[in-house]
Amino acid sequence: MRIQSVRGTRDFYPEEMALRLWLFESWRRVSRRAGFVEVDGPALEPLDLYTGKSGPEIADQLYWLEDKSGRRLALRPEFTPTLARMIAARQASLPEPIRWFNISRCFRYERAQKGRLREFFQWNVDLVGVEGEVADAECIAVAADALAELGLGPDDVEFRISDRRLLGALVRHLGIADAKVPQIFQILDKRDKVEAKALEAMLAEAGLAPDQRAALERILAWREFSDIAAGERATPEVAQAVESLERLFGLLKAYGIDSWCRFDIGTVRGLDYYTGPVWEVHDRKGELRAIFGGGRYDRLLADVGGKPMAACGFGCGDVILGMLLRDRGLGPELKEQPEYYIATWNRDWKRVFTVVSHLRRKGRAVLPDCRGGTILRQEKRAIESGARFIVTVDDKDIAWPLVRVRDLRPADSGGPTSAAKDYRDLGGEPE
Amino acid sequence: MRIQSVRGTRDFYPEEMALRLWLFESWRRVSRRAGFVEVDGPALEPLDLYTGKSGPEIADQLYWLEDKSGRRLALRPEFTPTLARMIAARQASLPEPIRWFNISRCFRYERAQKGRLREFFQWNVDLVGVEGEVADAECIAVAADALAELGLGPDDVEFRISDRRLLGALVRHLGIADAKVPQIFQILDKRDKVEAKALEAMLAEAGLAPDQRAALERILAWREFSDIAAGERATPEVAQAVESLERLFGLLKAYGIDSWCRFDIGTVRGLDYYTGPVWEVHDRKGELRAIFGGGRYDRLLADVGGKPMAACGFGCGDVILGMLLRDRGLGPELKEQPEYYIATWNRDWKRVFTVVSHLRRKGRAVLPDCRGGTILRQEKRAIESGARFIVTVDDKDIAWPLVRVRDLRPADSGGPTSAAKDYRDLGGEPE
Repeated sequence: MRIQSVRGTRDFYPEEMALRLWLFESWRRVSRRAGFVEVDGPALEPLDLYTGKSGPEIADQLYWLEDKSGRRLALRPEFTPTLARMIAARQASLPEPIRWFNISRCFRYERAQKGRLREFFQWNVDLVGVEGEVADAECIAVAADALAELGLGPDDVEFRISDRRLLGALVRHLGIADAKVPQIFQILDKRDKVEAKALEAMLAEAGLAPDQRAALERILAWREFSDIAAGERATPEVAQAVESLERLFGLLKAYGIDSWCRFDIGTVRGLDYYTGPVWEVHDRKGELRAIFGGGRYDRLLADVGGKPMAACGFGCGDVILGMLLRDRGLGPELKEQPEYYIATWNRDWKRVFTVVSHLRRKGRAVLPDCRGGTILRQEKRAIESGARFIVTVDDKDIAWPLVRVRDLRPADSGGPTSAAKDYRDLGGEPE
Repeated sequence: MRIQSVRGTRDFYPEEMALRLWLFESWRRVSRRAGFVEVDGPALEPLDLYTGKSGPEIADQLYWLEDKSGRRLALRPEFTPTLARMIAARQASLPEPIRWFNISRCFRYERAQKGRLREFFQWNVDLVGVEGEVADAECIAVAADALAELGLGPDDVEFRISDRRLLGALVRHLGIADAKVPQIFQILDKRDKVEAKALEAMLAEAGLAPDQRAALERILAWREFSDIAAGERATPEVAQAVESLERLFGLLKAYGIDSWCRFDIGTVRGLDYYTGPVWEVHDRKGELRAIFGGGRYDRLLADVGGKPMAACGFGCGDVILGMLLRDRGLGPELKEQPEYYIATWNRDWKRVFTVVSHLRRKGRAVLPDCRGGTILRQEKRAIESGARFIVTVDDKDIAWPLVRVRDLRPADSGGPTSAAKDYRDLGGEPE
């Protein structure tokens, strides 16, 4: 019986795995260069950790099960709630500010489609315990550094940046109740994904009168801070939010990444826990959905039972970013290769293992043939493996402990050369 | 509401994560040095992948759920069935032999106890497509190299090695039906974990007559190949299995790891899929249960619907190994540290970000303070971070673009020194 893998999951054969490892290593390097340290939590969390804030309907988009004691356990759909839980559990003793990053396997039970998988990986960077735009700017800078590290630039992607407090103040200024704002944000987050008509219908259903919808459309057309109408700009809440955003953009300019960034009043993010600046990275061609994003979430710690703490960060999935990288032909340059391939003339495996052991103890990457056969066939396998040298044990005409060493590089770069050597002399210097 | 993590799972704060990363990097380094390449599969697999061979009762030890279409999905308890599924799916095109390794997050719904967690990590090394002891020896060699890489030696651990074909032949020679052998192996695998009386009772319940149980006890007392009684040794099956084991031990000696290894006829491993040599690593003190193990599983590919293929490998969990490493005081030497800590005299974050950006572009690890406060307080945080240099922007008495650079190393190793420098000259050479 042939068993199929689960829909929306992936098998990582060596080639796909090499791409994933390259991505993870880039993320790690950039995170550490910015002084973030790696943490992780379980992939299995109490379902309450997700339904507590977002309501029970979120369970429908998660994989969850009931254990033998009737406890509901969920496969984590993201890392941030775990991060908040972990900080809340040790809030008194963790030195502040907390600069953590994480690379998580996450799960979402959504309709599997282009760019949406049911199992994926996510890089999280979070800066907890710092108020003000300096922390938001630092997170955006790390995100931009990572994209640059992967080979992407401001011609490929843009950061669309806003502040929930700005659109929130403007929406309230239209006479819409504060309690309704999260729902409006949820709808606006779908702006890139649905037709204008459908969006209009959702806003109407949410109770927005025609004049409120028209005003909202006018607001969403603003492209620059200077577009903000004077009447609304005069509102203290709006003025404050704009000043904060201007400070944020000033810091991004100081960091030298202003060409990657633009103000986009309609960027709100879908998750309920954001409270301040929010941002999304999009491809400039507009072919893909949002690549990733983040923002400030100053209330999440209190929501999971901790004391309130300023916090911001982002989560970057590997799926849409992977599509963009493939589209741009970006990826790891070299595959992992052994240095020595050990062939055998007569299948005296003890001698093969003696040579293998000697070379590995010298720290060399060594691949023994393990199957034997003609030297020609073993040499073919050696070349396929990408090895630099083939060492033949018990080559005819030479006597143990001598072995034959051949350089497998193309002739014009010096090789192939061949020499008989005592195996005990191998592995110290380049042969 | 404070939410607790799921029992049997772990939170990895920076310190625990550093240990895990050190372990994973050691595993990766050793695997690659031996010419294995990394692969991975989903953590979510069809439940059938595990119940197909072992029967539905295995589901009781797994986390599994039914999706909206009624499909049963399991959290993987180990990687080997996934490996077999992946190979079977591309058997025609994968170059042989297949040398794969994997580091997996795995899940088992067992009673949480010392050394047994419900979520853990496992390193898998598999060599597929090679018959004969050379492949088994290569896997054991990689396992020993990894233990040595972590700082362990033959005084800390031993490899107990046998061959299922040997004990299988001996058991059949006692007149026990071939169909009953797997059950006997299952019972014998518990030998280290239960009292002699309980083992005896289980064997009786399995249908072994008193004389068969006595004979089995006599067999299990053999410590060397020479202990094997002449009558039994004369059986062709037994003779073949012993010769194969002798060849295996010859290869382990050639590799120079014979001092780590001993013959142990009672080692059978608990999983049903093993068909030949099997081995387990135990701590010499005997304080812990088996640290890890592996063996040959030549029928697994056919069991998942592929064509039969010789295969062997091992899986090493992080939990018991972690306990041993902690007990021996082994672990990573240095924590990740930033090179530069950027402090600010007057919270001019734009200038801070200008310096941070300059240094990160030079590839330096840089941590901006992000909070400000007195220089003394920032310096304290800099020292806690382990940074080598503190750079103060807008230090009194010096004018931008000059910044103050102080070496934070203890005075006897050259520092602290302090100098005013143009920030644009930083980061190229050691300050």
